[in-house]
Amino acid sequence: MAPVRVYNFAAGPAMLPTEVLEIAQAELTDWQGSGMSVMEVSHRGKPFIACAAHAEQALRGVLGVPDNYRVLFLQGGATSQFAALPMNLTEPGDTVAYLHTGQWSIKAIKAAKKQGLTVDVLADEAPSNYTTVPAAGSYTVPAAAKYLHYTPNETIGGVEFDYIPDGAGVPLAADFSSTILSRPLDVARYGVIYAGAQKNMGPAGLAVVIVRDDLIGHARATTPDVWDYAAMAAADSMLNPPPTFAVYLLGLILDWIERTGGLTAMAERNQAKAAALYAAIDDSGFYRNPVDPTVRSWMNVPFTLADAALDADFLKEAEAQGLTNLKGHRSVGGMRASIYNAMPREGVDALIAFMTDFAQRRG
Amino acid sequence: MAPVRVYNFAAGPAMLPTEVLEIAQAELTDWQGSGMSVMEVSHRGKPFIACAAHAEQALRGVLGVPDNYRVLFLQGGATSQFAALPMNLTEPGDTVAYLHTGQWSIKAIKAAKKQGLTVDVLADEAPSNYTTVPAAGSYTVPAAAKYLHYTPNETIGGVEFDYIPDGAGVPLAADFSSTILSRPLDVARYGVIYAGAQKNMGPAGLAVVIVRDDLIGHARATTPDVWDYAAMAAADSMLNPPPTFAVYLLGLILDWIERTGGLTAMAERNQAKAAALYAAIDDSGFYRNPVDPTVRSWMNVPFTLADAALDADFLKEAEAQGLTNLKGHRSVGGMRASIYNAMPREGVDALIAFMTDFAQRRG
Repeated sequence: MAPVRVYNFAAGPAMLPTEVLEIAQAELTDWQGSGMSVMEVSHRGKPFIACAAHAEQALRGVLGVPDNYRVLFLQGGATSQFAALPMNLTEPGDTVAYLHTGQWSIKAIKAAKKQGLTVDVLADEAPSNYTTVPAAGSYTVPAAAKYLHYTPNETIGGVEFDYIPDGAGVPLAADFSSTILSRPLDVARYGVIYAGAQKNMGPAGLAVVIVRDDLIGHARATTPDVWDYAAMAAADSMLNPPPTFAVYLLGLILDWIERTGGLTAMAERNQAKAAALYAAIDDSGFYRNPVDPTVRSWMNVPFTLADAALDADFLKEAEAQGLTNLKGHRSVGGMRASIYNAMPREGVDALIAFMTDFAQRRG
Repeated sequence: MAPVRVYNFAAGPAMLPTEVLEIAQAELTDWQGSGMSVMEVSHRGKPFIACAAHAEQALRGVLGVPDNYRVLFLQGGATSQFAALPMNLTEPGDTVAYLHTGQWSIKAIKAAKKQGLTVDVLADEAPSNYTTVPAAGSYTVPAAAKYLHYTPNETIGGVEFDYIPDGAGVPLAADFSSTILSRPLDVARYGVIYAGAQKNMGPAGLAVVIVRDDLIGHARATTPDVWDYAAMAAADSMLNPPPTFAVYLLGLILDWIERTGGLTAMAERNQAKAAALYAAIDDSGFYRNPVDPTVRSWMNVPFTLADAALDADFLKEAEAQGLTNLKGHRSVGGMRASIYNAMPREGVDALIAFMTDFAQRRG
């Protein structure tokens, strides 16, 4: 019996394109006719160097990364970059600016404080319960700040910026873990973009950093080499063995994005998926999403049922229909549907059909 | 046509057990009947928590890890631990002791100096060109040292300790990347054991740390959470998404070790493989290994040909016979055969047969 794939709404690690997994599966014991798995080849050998170079070139092509930016493949996920960013761009005592829009912003702020920085939190959306973002122009970036950091999409709150903040000359740094590759991105507006791979770029264990040349080479003396942007840039991200299988999968995923129309087509599909799901929620009279409609996330859709006592039944019935990992984050409750690039429209439609049926029967 | 697997002598990433890869391949798109890859499931979900717990319990069982040690699954490879170890066990200005026996020792020493430590190098084998290790009793560990660090096996030089250094009350820290799981190990003699996975434990991207309880909780205030032994121990190594696929493969590899007789049987096989290869080298009159026979590595066997002008032909002919990645490290030249756990005896015998034939024809 052929395996049946489910629609997996997990927030990350998350669903991957089935056709990418099938390519990886087919060549898992014999990559490119080498008689070896891609996991078994030396990172210093020509085949893997070409594999990593392909992933980088494909990322540059798909995302339109300007020539004055370096692409780094690091380890430790975005959480590691919460600390690596201050280590690379500041000295203790420096001032940095952060926008606080949810749980991931808080983690980034805490990590910056741990590095001995004066953290100027320019906006704090906790009072809104993270249902909106600060309006453009409602905050002023201090000129002394070494960077302005924000979280374009908050995976837990399901809220995303509908504009790119203006750093007013201060480099803009952003954690793009949950929206990178979901739509076109104007990289040139940023100083540092970083993202954990485990949502739109592959398995957990890889962090992609895109950093402007002039921000490289200012790391603190104590910065570990594997987190030093300059040292890793000079070594093509191979000071030590990179997470080779994750880099290989990133290349396959970028090929898949290119084959399916690139980021413009991806954005159209993602926007349509999100619009359909939010419409189903808003029109239901049974489900509710609390986020300001202008800044609702395309990727993470939290929603509650009219009666929380029905949550367990909802999850159980959804699971039985092959709609998995819909339970909301422990800090929010309710449900959350993460609908990253790899979630097909059919998966969203199946979820909407189930939700509609459930509301009719139980609402 | 069924894929033909080669004998891959790479130093790491390295050969993995074919039967482990075949299990991973079979369930790559549908893990445990979930309809998802193990790469796609949430690290916070019960199935993956059980998977990680299995890997830890299997490691504890196979290696005999005492109850007063924590097992951490971190990211960044052993190179990251070169910095994380000082961050967790010292403050700037502290004294630490290192034994210098090769390229990997040097990297560890440099990383410690970068953390502002006084590094007391108790022995330096550079004058021997890394062909031996310091004799037990030939060095004195300063009582003020926060730890004594050594490299039980130097992957490049192909030299390994035939004894466990005596810390004289100072905690012993060791980079076991290239020998962990190759034979039984008396964990209780150590304060901290760490190892990158990509030799005997799986793919690149995972670092395993085994640390004694009393050494946890002393990290510098600036230590990033993902490198803080206490923070990661408290979170079962899941402060952020771990490299889930690598953890899963580690579990499969440990199952394979258990099925094939555990570490005692593994040690017998590894010792016999190494003995056969060294004997073939020593008896050839054509090949040469420079390392003191009492401390030759079971895992990494560097050797030179009588005439370096034949190196290219040797590599080309070996490759044609499915014996790959034999080129020596760039700093040493010649050849290197890495014969980790996953290299079957048949692979070593095939290499010996080829070497013997080559020497007869070209020697």
